[in-house]
Amino acid sequence: MPRVSADQLAARREQILDGARACFARHGYEGATVRRLEQSTGLSRGAIFHHFRDKDALFFALAERDAERMTEIVAEQGLVQVMRELLTSPERIDAGWTGTFLEIARRGRTDPGFRDRWRQHAEALTAATQARLERQARGGTLRDDVPIPVLARYLELVLEGLVSHLSMELPGEHLTGVLDLVEGAVRRR
Amino acid sequence: MPRVSADQLAARREQILDGARACFARHGYEGATVRRLEQSTGLSRGAIFHHFRDKDALFFALAERDAERMTEIVAEQGLVQVMRELLTSPERIDAGWTGTFLEIARRGRTDPGFRDRWRQHAEALTAATQARLERQARGGTLRDDVPIPVLARYLELVLEGLVSHLSMELPGEHLTGVLDLVEGAVRRR
Repeated sequence: MPRVSADQLAARREQILDGARACFARHGYEGATVRRLEQSTGLSRGAIFHHFRDKDALFFALAERDAERMTEIVAEQGLVQVMRELLTSPERIDAGWTGTFLEIARRGRTDPGFRDRWRQHAEALTAATQARLERQARGGTLRDDVPIPVLARYLELVLEGLVSHLSMELPGEHLTGVLDLVEGAVRRR
Repeated sequence: MPRVSADQLAARREQILDGARACFARHGYEGATVRRLEQSTGLSRGAIFHHFRDKDALFFALAERDAERMTEIVAEQGLVQVMRELLTSPERIDAGWTGTFLEIARRGRTDPGFRDRWRQHAEALTAATQARLERQARGGTLRDDVPIPVLARYLELVLEGLVSHLSMELPGEHLTGVLDLVEGAVRRR
């Protein structure tokens, strides 16, 4: 029997995460049964749970990964840019990414243990958003009559609202105008 | 056996809705088992399902009622005021109300049938928000460089984000400042 290389293991892990993301997004955490996870990843339960201890560990790994990618984009391009990309081509950030985000919010509410484990990731996103705003402030493009932590929280709230809205597949019209307004609201006038 | 009056029936219905709201908020839709619904309402499953066909009907009745109350507050005082009340004393709007809201968002995503049934309520809220903004525009207090439907969608997105944020029990600091910023962003400068 040939040994499995580290590359193959990593690729397998990716395959599981990608399939699981679509599954959680479509069915929610509870609805993502082991059978559905098998279908969406194209792998057996044995293969899936060789890489992840259980469904909870799989979901958490996925949420962590998505949060890290998002934090990177924020640091480089800012939170409004994340929102614009979410609007024009969701798949550029991640297929099913909005679904993961909403499941995180819901599990944070119903599961205090999850909420505690998640806190550091939420804080990392806030820190990236603030750092980006501080750069803009030094460049003189940011309004200076509102403290930066308030501006950061503001952008985060709009993002949370946008994700929730898109997840519901509610009407998408006016959203580009909304993001222009949001961007204008943090800029120096 | 004494006959039950219409008043008693209505009171019983209220008791079920109040208990169920707390139960859905704490455990989520799937987690709100019949046993937990019995505990949180203080009534037997027989009594509960005498009033509501099934758990789905109970949840929908609750969501409808909360949406109607919210639409009333919006029509009278505006969406930013709803957000301020949510922030300072959630129970003034409704205990567990944020939980219902988030469950609506999640079921809208995972259940297309629910999403279709819910659409008219979402539209009623949008209509109330727009009507209120039009009143402000006539009073000359609204900015006039952004179309009213964009301003309405903007306020709705911030509300959705705020509800999601509060449901997660994420840090509450800066939120009053955020709402001041939001209010300023729709006002005439």
